[in-house]
Amino acid sequence: MQFSEEIIARHMRPITGSAIREIFKLLGKPGMISFAGGNPSNAALEPEVISEIAREALGKYGAQLLQYGATEGFGPFLESAREFLKGAGVSAGPGELLPVQGGSQAWDLLLKAVIEPGDAILAESPTFLGALQAMRTYNAAVIPIATDDRGAIPEDVEEKIRKHRPKLLYVIPTFQNPTGVTLSLERRRALAELANRYGVVLAEDDPYRDLRFSGEPLPTIKSFDENGWVVYMSSFSKYVAPGLRLGAVVANPVLLRKMTIGKQSADVHSPLLIQAIVDGYLRKGLMPAHLERICADYRRQLGAMLNGFRYFPEGTRNTSPEGGLFVWAELPEGKNARELLETAVAKNVAYVPGTFFYVEGGHENTMRLNFSNAPVEDIEKGMRLLGEALR
Amino acid sequence: MQFSEEIIARHMRPITGSAIREIFKLLGKPGMISFAGGNPSNAALEPEVISEIAREALGKYGAQLLQYGATEGFGPFLESAREFLKGAGVSAGPGELLPVQGGSQAWDLLLKAVIEPGDAILAESPTFLGALQAMRTYNAAVIPIATDDRGAIPEDVEEKIRKHRPKLLYVIPTFQNPTGVTLSLERRRALAELANRYGVVLAEDDPYRDLRFSGEPLPTIKSFDENGWVVYMSSFSKYVAPGLRLGAVVANPVLLRKMTIGKQSADVHSPLLIQAIVDGYLRKGLMPAHLERICADYRRQLGAMLNGFRYFPEGTRNTSPEGGLFVWAELPEGKNARELLETAVAKNVAYVPGTFFYVEGGHENTMRLNFSNAPVEDIEKGMRLLGEALR
Repeated sequence: MQFSEEIIARHMRPITGSAIREIFKLLGKPGMISFAGGNPSNAALEPEVISEIAREALGKYGAQLLQYGATEGFGPFLESAREFLKGAGVSAGPGELLPVQGGSQAWDLLLKAVIEPGDAILAESPTFLGALQAMRTYNAAVIPIATDDRGAIPEDVEEKIRKHRPKLLYVIPTFQNPTGVTLSLERRRALAELANRYGVVLAEDDPYRDLRFSGEPLPTIKSFDENGWVVYMSSFSKYVAPGLRLGAVVANPVLLRKMTIGKQSADVHSPLLIQAIVDGYLRKGLMPAHLERICADYRRQLGAMLNGFRYFPEGTRNTSPEGGLFVWAELPEGKNARELLETAVAKNVAYVPGTFFYVEGGHENTMRLNFSNAPVEDIEKGMRLLGEALR
Repeated sequence: MQFSEEIIARHMRPITGSAIREIFKLLGKPGMISFAGGNPSNAALEPEVISEIAREALGKYGAQLLQYGATEGFGPFLESAREFLKGAGVSAGPGELLPVQGGSQAWDLLLKAVIEPGDAILAESPTFLGALQAMRTYNAAVIPIATDDRGAIPEDVEEKIRKHRPKLLYVIPTFQNPTGVTLSLERRRALAELANRYGVVLAEDDPYRDLRFSGEPLPTIKSFDENGWVVYMSSFSKYVAPGLRLGAVVANPVLLRKMTIGKQSADVHSPLLIQAIVDGYLRKGLMPAHLERICADYRRQLGAMLNGFRYFPEGTRNTSPEGGLFVWAELPEGKNARELLETAVAKNVAYVPGTFFYVEGGHENTMRLNFSNAPVEDIEKGMRLLGEALR
C-alpha cells in the first residue's frame, strides 16, 4: 500500500507550521535586517563562559551527568532554580518545580496533563503562535480573549469562562509576545481571582520578566494564587541561551506530578549536562550583571526602534514596551502587512505579519517587530526602509 | 475553589507511574546490587572525553550553539547521524531524519502525529513499559501481540491487524526490552510486509542494536520497507550516554514533517550543544572502539548472569540474549516475583517484576534482570542471593 496522509491524526493534518517558516527562509539573504525572530542578541550569548562551566560541571560530577537522571530533575539545578524564582516572588515547595525543555515544554506538558480533545482554552488575542500551535496538536478549542494596552480584559475572561467552561487560561503577563504589553497589577489580581473562583488552570508564561528596561516590576499572577490554580512557567532561553533549551515550571504538587509523568514518557528527563550548566551559571552569581548588561543594550535597541516609527505611515499605532523583545504595530486600516512583507524583503527588512498571532486570522494591518537581534544602526536603517516599504 | 484532580484529563488520571519508581527508591540502600535499571555501566561513560568535545564544539561554533536552532536539527549532527545509521543499513534522505530527546521522544512524537483517542496500537507482549505509558498518555488502545523465542509472531500480528485495524505496530526487534530476544530474519521481513500490505506504521525501536556480543547482525525491519511504512528509531543513550538525551528517528518525509511540527510545539529543538557533542564524538571516529570495549565488558557480565541461574529454583526458564542489557526469567508457576521482591531487597538484590511489562498485567512469575550496571563479582553474588530469595 502506498503511504497515505490518512494515517495522520485528523486534527494534525491541517497543522503545517509553514507560514512563519517561509518568512524565516528569507532571513538567510545577505544584508537582511531581521525584525522577524524572537532571538536574543548574539552579543548576549557567552560561549566561553558556558564552555568553562561545562568543563567544571563534568569535572565535578563526572559520569553522573552522563547517566540516566530523575525526571524530577537534577538536585543542584532544582535548588538554584528555586532560588532564582524567589527573585520573581515565586516560591516552589517540594514537588512543585520541574525542569523542562524551555517554556514550550512546560506548556506542552500542561496540555498533555489536562486536555481532552475539544476542551476549551482561553488565550489572549493576539498571542504567541507557538503556544497556539501546541493547543492545536492537542485538538483543543482555542477561545480568544480581548486585550487592550493593559493586557487581557478580566470582564471578557469571566464572560468566556461562564460561556465556554475552559480548562485552561493562557496568559503572557509581562512584555507579551507579540505585543510587548504588560498586564496591569489590578488585572493580575483579577485573573488569579477568576482562576481560583471558577476552577480554571491559569498558565502564566513569563519568560521575559527579567528583561525590564524601565518601570517597576509587578508581582506575578502566581503571587495572588490562593488554591494552586496558577502554573508559573519560566525559562532561561531569554536570560542565558535559548539553544540550551532549559526552563522551569512551578505548579501545585498534584498537577506537577501529572506533568512529570507526561515528561517521563515524552523524553525521560532534561539533559543533565544542560541542567548542570545553568545551575553553575546561577551559583556563580553571573545572572544579575549579565541581565544588567543585556538590558542596557536592549534598551538602546528598543529606543532606536520606537524612534523609527516616525518613518511609518501616518495613523500607525505602536506599543511602547518597558522591556522584553517585541514591539507591536497597527498600520492604518487598509494596509496589509502580509502582502507588504514582499516589498519589505525586497528592501532587505523582515518582520512577522500580525495575522499569524490571531486564532481567527484577520488583523492584516498588524505586525510584530523584534528589536533584540539587530544592532542599533541596523534598526535605524531597517525602520527607515520599512517605512518606505509600507507607504 | 479548592484544586481538584477532576481538572486532569480522564485518561491521565489512572497513570501514576509509581510501580517502578517505588522499586527504584530502594536502590539507594547501601550495598544494594541492582539488576533493576536499564542503565549502561558507569565504566562505559566518558566524562573527560565529553568535556573535551564540548570545549572544542563551543570553540568552533561559538554563539551559534547557544542561539535558537532549527527544529529539523543541527546540520553537522544530521550529517554524522545519517552516516552512523548507514552502519545499520538505514539510509535517510533529505527530510527523513530528525534529532530527538532519545528514543522516548521519537515514540512520543509518532504518537502525537498519528493517534486519536481510542486508536489501536499493537505491541509485543511483554514490551518496554515506558512505551506503554506513552501510549496511555495518548489514550490509545494497546493490543498485546504474542511472542516467542524468535520475537513477535507474524500470524498473530496479521490476525490482530485484521481485527483491530491499528494505526501503529510497536516492535523492539533487537535484544528486546524486557526479554533480550531478537526478532528472526524471516519475521523481520514478514512484519515489514504486513505493515506495507495493510497500511500500518511499524515503529522499529532499535536502541540496543550495536550492543551485540555474539552472533551476526540481522538487517533492520526498515531495510525491508517498500513504501515508507516503517519508522526507524535509534538512540545514543546506550552507545554514548543516556544523560545527554539524544537520538535520531528516520521516517518518510510526510510523516517526519508531522513529527517535526509536533517537536516544534513540544520543545522547539534538541539542545544544540548536545547535538554538537554527539556529532563530535561520531566525527572523531570514537564509536567503533568504544562499542568494542563496552561490548567486551557486557559480554562478561552477561556470562556471569547466565551462569548464576544455577542458583534459581528448578524449572526456571531464562532467555540467553546475544546482546543488549537484559535477561528475562520465568520462575516456576506459583512463584510471585512481585511478592518475592521484598525478600530479595532484604538480601540486597533488586530486579523488576515482569508483570509491569504486560498490558494486561498478570505473569507474576516473570522478572527482568539487567546485567550492564553491576560488576561481574556483584552479579555472581547477586544471583546467588537472588536464588536464595526465590526458593
